[in-house]
Amino acid sequence: MMKLSRLLLNSSRNQSSKNLLYGKDVNLSDGLPLHSFTSRAGISTAGPGQTLGVKGSIAAPYTVYKGKAALSVTPVLPTFTKLDSGLRVVDRHGVMMLKFIPAIGERKYDWEKKQLFALNATEVGSLISMGSNDSCEFFHDPSMLSSNAGQVRKSLSIKPHATGGGYMISLTVVNNILKTRDNFAVPFTTAEFAVVKTVCSYALPHILGWDRLTNKLPRDLPEAHASSSKVDRRDLDTEWDR
Amino acid sequence: MMKLSRLLLNSSRNQSSKNLLYGKDVNLSDGLPLHSFTSRAGISTAGPGQTLGVKGSIAAPYTVYKGKAALSVTPVLPTFTKLDSGLRVVDRHGVMMLKFIPAIGERKYDWEKKQLFALNATEVGSLISMGSNDSCEFFHDPSMLSSNAGQVRKSLSIKPHATGGGYMISLTVVNNILKTRDNFAVPFTTAEFAVVKTVCSYALPHILGWDRLTNKLPRDLPEAHASSSKVDRRDLDTEWDR
Amino acid sequence: MMKLSRLLLNSSRNQSSKNLLYGKDVNLSDGLPLHSFTSRAGISTAGPGQTLGVKGSIAAPYTVYKGKAALSVTPVLPTFTKLDSGLRVVDRHGVMMLKFIPAIGERKYDWEKKQLFALNATEVGSLISMGSNDSCEFFHDPSMLSSNAGQVRKSLSIKPHATGGGYMISLTVVNNILKTRDNFAVPFTTAEFAVVKTVCSYALPHILGWDRLTNKLPRDLPEAHASSSKVDRRDLDTEWDR
Amino acid sequence: MMKLSRLLLNSSRNQSSKNLLYGKDVNLSDGLPLHSFTSRAGISTAGPGQTLGVKGSIAAPYTVYKGKAALSVTPVLPTFTKLDSGLRVVDRHGVMMLKFIPAIGERKYDWEKKQLFALNATEVGSLISMGSNDSCEFFHDPSMLSSNAGQVRKSLSIKPHATGGGYMISLTVVNNILKTRDNFAVPFTTAEFAVVKTVCSYALPHILGWDRLTNKLPRDLPEAHASSSKVDRRDLDTEWDR
Repeated sequence: MMKLSRLLLNSSRNQSSKNLLYGKDVNLSDGLPLHSFTSRAGISTAGPGQTLGVKGSIAAPYTVYKGKAALSVTPVLPTFTKLDSGLRVVDRHGVMMLKFIPAIGERKYDWEKKQLFALNATEVGSLISMGSNDSCEFFHDPSMLSSNAGQVRKSLSIKPHATGGGYMISLTVVNNILKTRDNFAVPFTTAEFAVVKTVCSYALPHILGWDRLTNKLPRDLPEAHASSSKVDRRDLDTEWDR
Repeated sequence: MMKLSRLLLNSSRNQSSKNLLYGKDVNLSDGLPLHSFTSRAGISTAGPGQTLGVKGSIAAPYTVYKGKAALSVTPVLPTFTKLDSGLRVVDRHGVMMLKFIPAIGERKYDWEKKQLFALNATEVGSLISMGSNDSCEFFHDPSMLSSNAGQVRKSLSIKPHATGGGYMISLTVVNNILKTRDNFAVPFTTAEFAVVKTVCSYALPHILGWDRLTNKLPRDLPEAHASSSKVDRRDLDTEWDR
Repeated sequence: MMKLSRLLLNSSRNQSSKNLLYGKDVNLSDGLPLHSFTSRAGISTAGPGQTLGVKGSIAAPYTVYKGKAALSVTPVLPTFTKLDSGLRVVDRHGVMMLKFIPAIGERKYDWEKKQLFALNATEVGSLISMGSNDSCEFFHDPSMLSSNAGQVRKSLSIKPHATGGGYMISLTVVNNILKTRDNFAVPFTTAEFAVVKTVCSYALPHILGWDRLTNKLPRDLPEAHASSSKVDRRDLDTEWDR
Repeated sequence: MMKLSRLLLNSSRNQSSKNLLYGKDVNLSDGLPLHSFTSRAGISTAGPGQTLGVKGSIAAPYTVYKGKAALSVTPVLPTFTKLDSGLRVVDRHGVMMLKFIPAIGERKYDWEKKQLFALNATEVGSLISMGSNDSCEFFHDPSMLSSNAGQVRKSLSIKPHATGGGYMISLTVVNNILKTRDNFAVPFTTAEFAVVKTVCSYALPHILGWDRLTNKLPRDLPEAHASSSKVDRRDLDTEWDR
């Protein structure tokens, strides 16, 4: 409890500062109106999860702030490794990173206590194909391959509100080593979930690395184009010629 | 009433000048056929909302002209601030900007009297998830954080036509300081609303800034790639290693 | 009938040369199997509609060949005009260009007798929002603003097959000056129409010019970014400050 | 059976190594949990289909590993030919390439025995328009135009699971020359098929070559823009002026 906590000062007045939303998607279940953060405070007040920067990095999460916790969603692109042959293969797949940040007071969130959950491509496929009455649940073991396997268990659950219109997104992290158990529950309105589904659909080809595959052909470098698809061309030949 | 008003001279003959549209999406409720603007007049006649330009700017709104008012939709991209760490964070979120322009005669619109309404990401999510019988309403207070809070109220309403097939998009702006009340109502056909939903879905990742996130990895700068994802990589490590 | 006609030699063996398609989307109503073109002939045999080239141009239509006619679909991007202020505004809106080419024999199409129909953004919205039982019809008068207004009438009709599964896309061009009447009817399978809807949804923001709007922010030119959105920022200020 | 077989060592711990998936999309019909590959082994252990590289190439397939076989999906972009006129036309259409790799033991796949099936644009349209109860089937004859026509027959079948929730994707290759018959069956969960549909929708304009069409207009080369659309502009003129 001595951990540093911060007042989340929302840096965008357009996104969430000055809007009141009384339409069909209003969700007051946490006792707080949506998007009620009012400060125009600058960037330096952003949480630590967003300020650990590196030259050239960009932080542009979609974040939903609710009474008990906030949830931010952001794509993490894959990394590639270049083989001796010149072929670049995916080294580490991209993911959709979910960050849960607990509230510790009105409009205060403790970024030090955030918990992460990384959705892989198939889990993203599960999310974007959810109907309005569907639910899904994912289990991750961050220590799966180590001697600590089973010591930390994370489970993410997405369930439709019983009253219709939106979902409850919950994360439980049980850490048997630290003897801790963290629970987060962030209610999403239909509109907020529609944003997540839309941007996850957009991000899916990118976290697979397909934007590099398809955009790598500059107009001015036809030779790059020719070479870049030789592998698959050979495969094509295989389909047609054997 | 002495304000300058202009004849909107549509600069595109293809988009709306020479087409007659008698299909299922025809909407004559305002007594005017859709897309009946016929002049090929040049750019300089565009309304002031489009001509206040800056070097490098592009104006490419999707505009629907109806009998009593016109409504144009255009994305406004986010701005970024560069922190000392090199990380760029969103300074001001992008929005979908709606502009309502009152008609003051046949094919005449008074751009001086336009009113704006900026949809944030979640409001865009609300719009793109609307079913054919759904309606939604948003309330904005442009002076929310100032001493004038509550003096100006804007409400945007999107309601399906009672007869089916399309929506009425209405804006009311009540300004207690100027003692004015402006009302706009622009009927959208199913086709026009489909355009809005499609391009809003396209724009959503862009107004969040994700196009910069995902397109920032040039093929020729692998080191940029490596650095650009260090932050999130660290987060990833956190998921898996703790 | 003395016009030059050509044997369409399909240049792609993958797209349509070697595939037999017996699935649910097979459409033999014209007495011809789909995708039955078999030659691997080179580019120079493409129809004149595709060979009237200019340096830097790209021709990449989606073309469906049927017994009585072929129909190709391709986006045409907008053009921009630069104002003195530096703002670039859309000069001519983009369209989805439909080309109908009559068949004059087995696998022979007369590109000299092709007819065009340019769908504007709203008409594209109509097409992509069509349910499986919907139909739509558009009327164009290419001479609408000239002394020949009414002399040439084009009507495009998209109607679901009575038996379900796909659409008949028909074009009628009546030219009272030349005393001609051209009719085209190209049956589209569900799969072919799904391609059209998908790529039209993709193309819609591009024919509005929004790809230039959203992609104009280079990573290395933050000042360009700042300036490029000044116009809309001013509008934003207007929303919030008045 | 003496062919070289390999242990597939999945190079990504995020994508599939450390996740347990017990949600609605779990598919244990093959007796193996999804995504159970656990090694962090390097790139050099990827199958030959991915390692036959060329400078500048990128391999980023979406691969689903199941008990009896694996199936990877990757887009193959079109190639263009430049005509004397300067126009670039599609030489070879893009496809979605499906690779089936048989399992030869627990977590072992024999890349030497892979079989390919290339979906053209219309077949992709068929796939992405499938409802949850729809099935489809495609037949290819790789030797269609040669003296070996009919000697090799490939049939791809996509059928919904009888129990709901996902599809069985099967490939049969009958080679009358080699007297072989290969069968593959890979069960896809709803989530995995949603990934395929989403990324195929993304890829469809790219395999048609439309990303080059729409992205070819650099901001700094307005003359390129003007020239690049001259052909279609001429067509436009044709629509409006005749």
